[in-house]
Amino acid sequence: MKTAVFYGVGVGPGDPELMTLKAVNVLKASPVIAVPRSSDKGSSRALEIIRGTVGLEGKEILELPFPMTKDKAVLESSRKQAASLVAERLSQGKNVAFITLGDPLVFSTFSYLVPFVRELSAGCAIRAVPGVTSFSAAASLLALPLAETDERVLIVPAAYELEKVKQALSAAETIVLMKVNKAIDAITDLIVDSGLIEKAFFVSRAGWPEEEVVTDLRTLKGTKPDYFSMIIIRKNG
Amino acid sequence: MKTAVFYGVGVGPGDPELMTLKAVNVLKASPVIAVPRSSDKGSSRALEIIRGTVGLEGKEILELPFPMTKDKAVLESSRKQAASLVAERLSQGKNVAFITLGDPLVFSTFSYLVPFVRELSAGCAIRAVPGVTSFSAAASLLALPLAETDERVLIVPAAYELEKVKQALSAAETIVLMKVNKAIDAITDLIVDSGLIEKAFFVSRAGWPEEEVVTDLRTLKGTKPDYFSMIIIRKNG
Repeated sequence: MKTAVFYGVGVGPGDPELMTLKAVNVLKASPVIAVPRSSDKGSSRALEIIRGTVGLEGKEILELPFPMTKDKAVLESSRKQAASLVAERLSQGKNVAFITLGDPLVFSTFSYLVPFVRELSAGCAIRAVPGVTSFSAAASLLALPLAETDERVLIVPAAYELEKVKQALSAAETIVLMKVNKAIDAITDLIVDSGLIEKAFFVSRAGWPEEEVVTDLRTLKGTKPDYFSMIIIRKNG
Repeated sequence: MKTAVFYGVGVGPGDPELMTLKAVNVLKASPVIAVPRSSDKGSSRALEIIRGTVGLEGKEILELPFPMTKDKAVLESSRKQAASLVAERLSQGKNVAFITLGDPLVFSTFSYLVPFVRELSAGCAIRAVPGVTSFSAAASLLALPLAETDERVLIVPAAYELEKVKQALSAAETIVLMKVNKAIDAITDLIVDSGLIEKAFFVSRAGWPEEEVVTDLRTLKGTKPDYFSMIIIRKNG
């Protein structure tokens, strides 16, 4: 029997046209499409994208539990459970494609699952299909270079330690702050204090129908941006 | 007359299947394909990719001069010359698609050209089509997450100041060193000295037929890697 493959497939930032040809081909050939259940905020958009480009007819949509918790025991047990659901399909010779917005190896739940699937499905292949990231889509929307020549780009998840955001502002020529929704006021204050407010752009859902650009971050104070929001600061602009 | 568009189109890292649907569609609809001439090492690969996926029949291939020099006057004059070649086609109502490996806003000559084209073609639109980057392709080839949860990713062009490479090693959880070909021995020494040699991977031309992975950087000493080489260091691996 042909060895089944567990794929992590990046479906791009949200615009269906930004899927790669490879993502389309792999998804067409996969009878099982795995998605993280509800708690992963990109799942429904990722499914919507492939519904339009590839079609879901005849495919099993396998919802995997990924609870939003910091409890390590709960996390490990849910990842094991998700992996066993995947492994079951692989053992039947079916390719399973785990879909993720953006790229499967940049802040995706795919990478959490890989070690558990590898353990349960020793004979199966695991492959990632890279995708266009949300920050590339944001840069294109802004027509803003992320890097030229000798410039450094630092990508920072801003939902955790504010001190790391502060450090980041002096550590590279371009700084991409992801997950800015929870602390937008404090982050804006830091950017103002660093004298970088004129160099900062807020982008939400680049490439989605509801994409949004805000060029003066101060107007966001007191608002509640959504999970798919980022700030790009380019000093040499 | 319809306004012509100047596109910067990312054709992905080198594997033709990693082009986006949008890149294919934009290139099909562009009668002029602009490429940086010879000195840009990705041009011939980028053209090869679209020859296979889109076809070049009936299209003008517009080679643009981008000399490899640090002389600012020469650089500015060649960019102006390149922009005027583009502007000439735009003024005839023809869309021009400037193709670039990876993403048009990540270390691409496209962004150098934009201000000059904007000046000469005030009425024309300028749009970027994002692409899969070389570092996403490398991560997929390695099946190595670039970032999970709260991890930072720092992308550093390593061909300029070695001191910046050294700083980078302690500034993020994942470090991507681009353009490592010119100083591979010194970079390897820095990584060894930082105790990160077991966490470092060398990848060349990910997704190309001649792709290469080296898991022990020390074996590269004294060799001459090519321009499309990078090192990824993931501390939490």
